[in-house]
Formats: sequence, structure tokens, C-alpha cells
Amino acid sequence: MPKKLIVLTLLFDGFELLDVFGPLEMFGFTNILKDNIELKFISENGLPVKSSAGPASVVDYSFSDVIHSDVLLIPGGAGTRTEVNNKVLIKWLTNQCDKTNIIASVCTGAALMAKAGILNNLPATTNKMFFEWVTSINSKVEWIAEARWIESNNIYTASGVSAGMDMALSLISKLYGQEVAMQVANGTEYEWHQDASYDPFAKLHGLV
Amino acid sequence: MPKKLIVLTLLFDGFELLDVFGPLEMFGFTNILKDNIELKFISENGLPVKSSAGPASVVDYSFSDVIHSDVLLIPGGAGTRTEVNNKVLIKWLTNQCDKTNIIASVCTGAALMAKAGILNNLPATTNKMFFEWVTSINSKVEWIAEARWIESNNIYTASGVSAGMDMALSLISKLYGQEVAMQVANGTEYEWHQDASYDPFAKLHGLV
Repeated sequence: MPKKLIVLTLLFDGFELLDVFGPLEMFGFTNILKDNIELKFISENGLPVKSSAGPASVVDYSFSDVIHSDVLLIPGGAGTRTEVNNKVLIKWLTNQCDKTNIIASVCTGAALMAKAGILNNLPATTNKMFFEWVTSINSKVEWIAEARWIESNNIYTASGVSAGMDMALSLISKLYGQEVAMQVANGTEYEWHQDASYDPFAKLHGLV
Repeated sequence: MPKKLIVLTLLFDGFELLDVFGPLEMFGFTNILKDNIELKFISENGLPVKSSAGPASVVDYSFSDVIHSDVLLIPGGAGTRTEVNNKVLIKWLTNQCDKTNIIASVCTGAALMAKAGILNNLPATTNKMFFEWVTSINSKVEWIAEARWIESNNIYTASGVSAGMDMALSLISKLYGQEVAMQVANGTEYEWHQDASYDPFAKLHGLV
């Protein structure tokens, strides 16, 4: 049996629900990808983690576990305001870069990646409503306001919340081909925005 | 302080992630609705429940708790194949109708509602990929193939997976007004399909 692709998601108190479960819906869509992909959660202490909206998720690993991941997903959410100042989490994130093939953030998850220095000298995007706050964290990042998501080698950053689903489908397309990605989009009845530069929300939020 | 709106979601082994967390993202969007809405989970035994894709959610209540809900959300997922034959769950669902103001299903969650008789003589829709299976469960339902979601008094049924987000925004619009719903859509950078009859997937899956 071929090795399964490990999609590891970092959870922290106050993560945004759809930042996590939008992409994971696409990666874990039962009929097509389930047998090839494993979805795992990691948090600082390995205990269940509460989202910003309330619901809590069970976690598989803590930072004391050494985990190789193929895709590392970093969600955003209100909790990022606290976590950008959590040295243990930022150090873990910096170290985990050497243990993963692809890193992908959604929404204000880019704030954590920026703080960890992962985005230095790279183009990146983030949530449009909190664009000013996220971009203030690290001026060495080439912040781009108008983008649904940005891909720079093995580092992906998506715009706010829902954009994570488009980014995930693009990643699935890279890993398993366009046909599989389209099957996932059609199966989940999701109108996939395939153009990474398509971003009506940058204008709506007054950024362009 | 005004009473919070309780959105109660029924979880069962093999629920579909986005059927649950798409609508709950909209209902729980931090900056606008968080202070007015409580998101709660219920399952048969109250223990954490595994989704069809793997990740498990912490649950608040079991069927032995008597809970009033303002909105009862019934997700779909591979697990519905087992649960339509789970007499305890179907009986709970039938009884819970008297303890909730609004009932809303996403995807194959309509199979459970159909089995419980909740949709008898009402128009309803469901996932387009498994339309034949769901509609075979109860012929007294006025099944409609081409619809993003259907509202019939206090009973809502959404099409597959992603359609739950459009339905949830429509519900938010009913409860809190169009402006609030649009703020949620824009804040989550989601292109809300506001027309309930818009359904490109019915044609794609050969149903019309």
C-alpha cells in the first residue's frame, strides 16, 4: 500500500472553524481522496482545542511529538492575536518547516508564519479585513493585497476564511491532478475559484 | 442580556466536515454574531464523534439530555447510510422537532429527516451525487432536484456540502437581517449564492 499523505493542522485556542474545515473537507472528501490522505491535528499540549466560535476539536499530537507532515496547515482566527506572542508556538512553527514539504496558511494564519520568519522575502497574502494588522507583523514579507491565494514554491498563503477552500483545491490539483481536484469540487458542490488572482474582497475592503 | 440563539448540531460517526462547519462558521462568525448565538453539539452517547474524513469533535450533550434549540442542524456524510437504520437516532430526531423552532439539513442529512417523516408532503432537496439513494427513502417527500436549498416554513434542506453555507446565510438573513448576513459573507470572504434556485450541480450530475 502506498504511503499516505499526512495533512497536519496546527490548532490553538480561538482558531477559525472554516479556516480548518474548509481545506480539510477538500483533502478528506470521502469518495476520492480518503484512502490516500490522513488528516491529523497538533496543538501545544495535545488536549482538545476550542475554536473562536465555540466548538472544540480532538487533537492527535502535542509539540512533544516529532511528526513529519506532507502538508502543514496553519489556520487563522481571533486566537492568532495571542499566539503571535506565544514563543513556544512560534518556535515550534519555525522548527516544523524542516519536517514538512508544503506549508499553507489561511486567513490570519499568515500572521503566525510571518512572525516565524517563514515568509521573509516571499510574496504572501492574508485576510482582507485584518490586512493592516497582519502586515504590520513583519515588513520583510512582500504582502500582496489583491489575491485569493499565493503560491511561492512550497509555501501557500490564502486570503480570508473561504479562500482556504480554493487554495486547498489548487494544492490537490498539484498533488493529484486537475481532474481529481475538479471531482472534489463537483462532489462537494463547491464553485471552485481556480484563478489565484481573483479577489473581489480586496476592493470591497478598500485595499485596492 | 437577551437570550442567546441556540444552534444545536446532531453529530454521528461519519458526518461530513463541511456540512457542519460551513454553516457553523457563518452562525459563529466572531465579530458580528458571536455574542448572540451559542453553537452546541449533541450525539447519541455524548462522546467525541469522528467525521467521515477522520477529525473528531467534542460533543456537549447526549440524547438523555433534554435540550431546546432554536435551530437544529442535521449534517450528511457517509455515516447517514448507517444512521437511517438507527431507530434510537431517528426517534430522537422525530421527538426533537417539538423542541426546536427551525430544522435545517445539509446534503444527505435530508435522508435522516425523510426517514423521521419530517419532510412528508413538503418540498425538499439533498446532495446531487446521492440523489437517487436519498429520495428512495421516502416517496411522500416532494423531492426537488434543482435547488441550492429549499425553505418550507421552518424546515430547510440544502443541497450537497457547500450549499449549507448559502442556506445558513439565508437563515441568518431571516433572523438578523440582510445586512448582517452580507457582513458575515464579506467578512468570511465567501461569495454567497443568494438565489435558492441557483443549482449548476443538478445539471452536472445529470438530474435535469
